[in-house]
Amino acid sequence: MTQLSSDPVASRQAARHFNLIDTDVHERAELSALVPYLEPMWRKYITDFGWQPDRILPYTQYAAGGLDRLDARLPDGRPGGSDYELLRQQLLDEFDIDYAILTGWLDASGLHPGWPEFKTALMSAYNDWQIEHWLNRDERLLGSVHVNAHDPAGAAREIDRVGSHPKMVQAILYIKDKPFGDPYYHPIYEACVRNNLALGMHHSENAPTALGFHRYFVEWHTLVSQVFMSEVVSLVFNGVFDKYPELKVIMIEGGFTYVPHLMSRSDQQYKELRSEVPWVKRMPSDIIREHVRFASQPTEEMSLERFLQLVEWCDSDELFCFSTDYPHWDFDSPWEALPQGMPEDLKRKIFYENAKNTYAKMPALRAIGQ
Amino acid sequence: MTQLSSDPVASRQAARHFNLIDTDVHERAELSALVPYLEPMWRKYITDFGWQPDRILPYTQYAAGGLDRLDARLPDGRPGGSDYELLRQQLLDEFDIDYAILTGWLDASGLHPGWPEFKTALMSAYNDWQIEHWLNRDERLLGSVHVNAHDPAGAAREIDRVGSHPKMVQAILYIKDKPFGDPYYHPIYEACVRNNLALGMHHSENAPTALGFHRYFVEWHTLVSQVFMSEVVSLVFNGVFDKYPELKVIMIEGGFTYVPHLMSRSDQQYKELRSEVPWVKRMPSDIIREHVRFASQPTEEMSLERFLQLVEWCDSDELFCFSTDYPHWDFDSPWEALPQGMPEDLKRKIFYENAKNTYAKMPALRAIGQ
Repeated sequence: MTQLSSDPVASRQAARHFNLIDTDVHERAELSALVPYLEPMWRKYITDFGWQPDRILPYTQYAAGGLDRLDARLPDGRPGGSDYELLRQQLLDEFDIDYAILTGWLDASGLHPGWPEFKTALMSAYNDWQIEHWLNRDERLLGSVHVNAHDPAGAAREIDRVGSHPKMVQAILYIKDKPFGDPYYHPIYEACVRNNLALGMHHSENAPTALGFHRYFVEWHTLVSQVFMSEVVSLVFNGVFDKYPELKVIMIEGGFTYVPHLMSRSDQQYKELRSEVPWVKRMPSDIIREHVRFASQPTEEMSLERFLQLVEWCDSDELFCFSTDYPHWDFDSPWEALPQGMPEDLKRKIFYENAKNTYAKMPALRAIGQ
Repeated sequence: MTQLSSDPVASRQAARHFNLIDTDVHERAELSALVPYLEPMWRKYITDFGWQPDRILPYTQYAAGGLDRLDARLPDGRPGGSDYELLRQQLLDEFDIDYAILTGWLDASGLHPGWPEFKTALMSAYNDWQIEHWLNRDERLLGSVHVNAHDPAGAAREIDRVGSHPKMVQAILYIKDKPFGDPYYHPIYEACVRNNLALGMHHSENAPTALGFHRYFVEWHTLVSQVFMSEVVSLVFNGVFDKYPELKVIMIEGGFTYVPHLMSRSDQQYKELRSEVPWVKRMPSDIIREHVRFASQPTEEMSLERFLQLVEWCDSDELFCFSTDYPHWDFDSPWEALPQGMPEDLKRKIFYENAKNTYAKMPALRAIGQ
């Protein structure tokens, strides 16, 4: 039996009796911090031309603290996720996290396709900065290889360049408006498999909804789960998982309540229309259960009973992986976001086992409370 | 106790013990049939210029019979829904339907916004043709006022012109790429309320998904449920139901498995971001439960247990209304589409009571098996 300690973190850890992997943590670079990592020919576009990421999200009214938790912003005005010490204190130590997967800021796949060479180079600078300032600094931090999906050959080269770093566990693509199942992007998936990396997909601020950008941010933030459904459908029906049977994909920051509908509707349409896609050999829901995972944030409050029904509807308890989305305004606390009273076995799966099984390069976890 | 008759239709009707309203039946006009109903100045665009509806759906491979049930196509090559006698035989008589709501073909709201005057005029011709060739021909057929949403003043005039016809029970808007909650469209809703009509929304072949038009028809047909979610979100957050508390909306041909996700996610986002939309006074799911209904087709096969969970998740058994989508290839049979063994009370609600409560002008139903 584990003794409760007087140290509050140790007590909570002891009470927890399981490990914790956070699959969505946003560290943030200032553009100026990337300059030293850029090849010289590109530096002036930031230092002299004042390049800024393309942004089309047409809203200015967000949550109270902007897009960050108010307490995660720095006193000097820098946004949340800019400072390792604060992130360590508010996230890694506060919740005694085993591993946090950095999902970044500034991902060229979520920007416009134009000027791809610069953006591909910028992703290299970002990855080198990420390794030096974050991955090398705390053993609990794991990384994402950021690439420019609009330049698939360059993206594959970048994955080959830094993907073998022991703490890089995935490549990540931010979703803008392209269905990533298109063969145009397959060199990226081939590089993931070659480097033993999972593939993360995260929406960008440039992701539209089915009817474009509505009038209010709350509409966009309600409907942005659509691009996740769209990407899963695109990967499945374009045969990506038939072509790359080792590939694991994790959909990050889309929540998970859309998954039963996605599976049920995809299956039904596959049954009726599969003659169009003869290379897809199995039911979409089977493909999803084998290859696709869903990071939990943003969770929707619900009763334990409904949560368990939802898991049952998916016919698998291996699909959901816990995430906080630190430092954003709708941060999910590991203690509060999911319903209380979950069976221990399911808790363990959601809080670390499912992530461990998604990321082939996940390091060993501590022995806790056993 | 009802005696089973030797007539097969009568037996099934007797075994059914309840009425049946079909909320989605597509009658179809040949363009040439509309010419006599057009104001003379517009006729030449069809007869001489060969105008055809704008169509952007970029797929040619559909189901085996094209977009129709193979047996619903006419021997002379005309598409399904073109012939009253065949529709009567295959649908109204075959399933002993009380009322079928005609949802049409050729709806200007699903076309491009250009040349609005012609399209508004064409909708008037369509409505007059619908009244003469369908509504006046069978007491079981009820109509939809087709309008051009891209000309809201013209649309409202058209609703006032034919909306008082006793068999017109709704106005219908086909969804292309516009969120219909925008105040631009509100004159249409005002006209619906003024004429005691429900508002139907149906996707068009021009409706995109969040990532546009993917590579395969099966992807589009899986993801087209997105535009229904988008329209509900648009109506709710733009305060349409706060402005028009009598308005009832029915989402047609999107299925219903997306509804739990839509409600849960909308509620969560409303809780977190409602400061942006202070005119929305209630939880989105409460607004949906009061104002929005969902025609069942295309249903997804599922066990009775899951179907009942899904209804429970919606916290209401009044949301779903049965529909067949006759004469399309994925027609849902009233005997087979929904799970067998449903509780009688729920069956009655889905097969007729919910529709009866949605359509203020629904005529009285026959007394059956009581």
